[in-house]
Amino acid sequence: MAGQGLAIVGVGKIARDQHIPSIAATPAFTLQATASRNAGVDGVARYDRLEDLLAAHPGVSCVSLCTPPQVRYADARRALLAGRHVMLEKPPGATLSEVHDLIALARAQGVALFATWHSRHAASVQAARQWMQGKDIKRVEVIWKEDVRRWHPGQDWIWQAGGLGVFDPGINALSVLSEIYPRAVHLTQAALYFPANRDTPIAADLTFHDPGGADMTAAFDWRQTGPQTWDIRIETAQGNATLSDGGARLVVDGAEVSAGPDHEYRALYARFAEVVAMRAVDVDLHPMIHVADAFTLGRRQAVDAFDW
Amino acid sequence: MAGQGLAIVGVGKIARDQHIPSIAATPAFTLQATASRNAGVDGVARYDRLEDLLAAHPGVSCVSLCTPPQVRYADARRALLAGRHVMLEKPPGATLSEVHDLIALARAQGVALFATWHSRHAASVQAARQWMQGKDIKRVEVIWKEDVRRWHPGQDWIWQAGGLGVFDPGINALSVLSEIYPRAVHLTQAALYFPANRDTPIAADLTFHDPGGADMTAAFDWRQTGPQTWDIRIETAQGNATLSDGGARLVVDGAEVSAGPDHEYRALYARFAEVVAMRAVDVDLHPMIHVADAFTLGRRQAVDAFDW
Repeated sequence: MAGQGLAIVGVGKIARDQHIPSIAATPAFTLQATASRNAGVDGVARYDRLEDLLAAHPGVSCVSLCTPPQVRYADARRALLAGRHVMLEKPPGATLSEVHDLIALARAQGVALFATWHSRHAASVQAARQWMQGKDIKRVEVIWKEDVRRWHPGQDWIWQAGGLGVFDPGINALSVLSEIYPRAVHLTQAALYFPANRDTPIAADLTFHDPGGADMTAAFDWRQTGPQTWDIRIETAQGNATLSDGGARLVVDGAEVSAGPDHEYRALYARFAEVVAMRAVDVDLHPMIHVADAFTLGRRQAVDAFDW
Repeated sequence: MAGQGLAIVGVGKIARDQHIPSIAATPAFTLQATASRNAGVDGVARYDRLEDLLAAHPGVSCVSLCTPPQVRYADARRALLAGRHVMLEKPPGATLSEVHDLIALARAQGVALFATWHSRHAASVQAARQWMQGKDIKRVEVIWKEDVRRWHPGQDWIWQAGGLGVFDPGINALSVLSEIYPRAVHLTQAALYFPANRDTPIAADLTFHDPGGADMTAAFDWRQTGPQTWDIRIETAQGNATLSDGGARLVVDGAEVSAGPDHEYRALYARFAEVVAMRAVDVDLHPMIHVADAFTLGRRQAVDAFDW
């Protein structure tokens, strides 16, 4: 039996690398159409505009939005108003207010809305969450340093206002941190490094307050060549752990205790099927609130211009 | 009968201009102590630190925080942990996350927390809200232009990260707009003008999306000498209105329909007495979310350095 009809909006790098193969591996969904100005998928009905897709395919009950955050709201609203269930790439929008608006609309329409945080589904995130329970945490260091030219080649939207710059990967770290940490924390200080010719930061240094007393910092940097780092390092009175490779691997006191391959997007589509079945609204804004706090509170410093 | 014992933290300009006279005019409260590094109030017990005040005055059941937003959280937390009811000047904190933390703490402690938005209590705000009901709104222009040297003389915290710059008065406009407008709106574009030598903007131009279809913009500027402007101008298919003087005066189709003197802070303390009686949490974050969205989405432009 074929899965529920699903459409993708925005056939770009993340759709090709992750969404399309994951949908193909998920029996609950069948990719029936795409809406994208630039590209399509072989053998799948293609439209330039979502409104035409929705009109032509009443059987497409689910819409997955893979477009950049700055343009996602209009299509999300369009799909919800047409009574379709909606899944949002991270971050769920360019502003908190527009996501609140989508939440209200999904509830009014009685359809599902799922804001995804793919990194939370990395192989060892739940193991890290378990390990931290009940520990006396002393220090947490989040280090997320990668080469923007390697991971975002030519994606100009990341440098445009609302594209978040280095917080595009950084929000993945914050989504993992807020998933594994036993308490809510909040930002107290931020330095944001803006290339002289760009509207979003290329690096950021953050300090958080943990009501439980741990020292907590995060360093995001897009200028890292050579080895890439996506680590959360945790020191406790009962031992130390590093959650590395973006959540794939957990090492406790020098010994690997959990590791696994990347099935993050398959997990997202499996979860989307549940959210659709329940007509639920699954939108956790914590990672995005941390980012908004960093932009609100952050000191801006100009650094060297960035060109591809 | 004397009112409930109340303490003020931060005896600065806003405390002297507004809080202290308003408390004196409110029978529900009696000012019993102050905590402030710089100043005190004649005839009232004075402490440098809130922790000493709380220890010495178990009868002070209510604490009103008039300190700058960057340092407010620690004292708010301290007062809540000591079982006291807390009132917060606007904005309620330097970050959204820290306010969420205070909300959770107040609920856990079973005490009251009141985040104030004084401009919502201006004389004609409710008249404007009533007038807008059911109207077909075409255009909204928020114009908030004042002279920072006149209203914030020497207050360096407004220029420090987290001090919000021109959004310190601008958030008043957003608090009124979100009070009178019949729908939630969200920011789609923002230009933020940062003096070359400061960490917060001196001016901002904002564009909002109204799902109801009205064009909506806001212009905040701290460089306005001469006449000062705190207007919300509204065009509808059924007539035009201007809410001016920061909400004090409503003019509809050229005729004044509502006006009154400034009793904003008296209204705040009257409301605080209600919130305390109910042990309620009255914290509306909408104005602050709009500001966080503007910082997240905004394009930064450097303008002339600012010196007092």
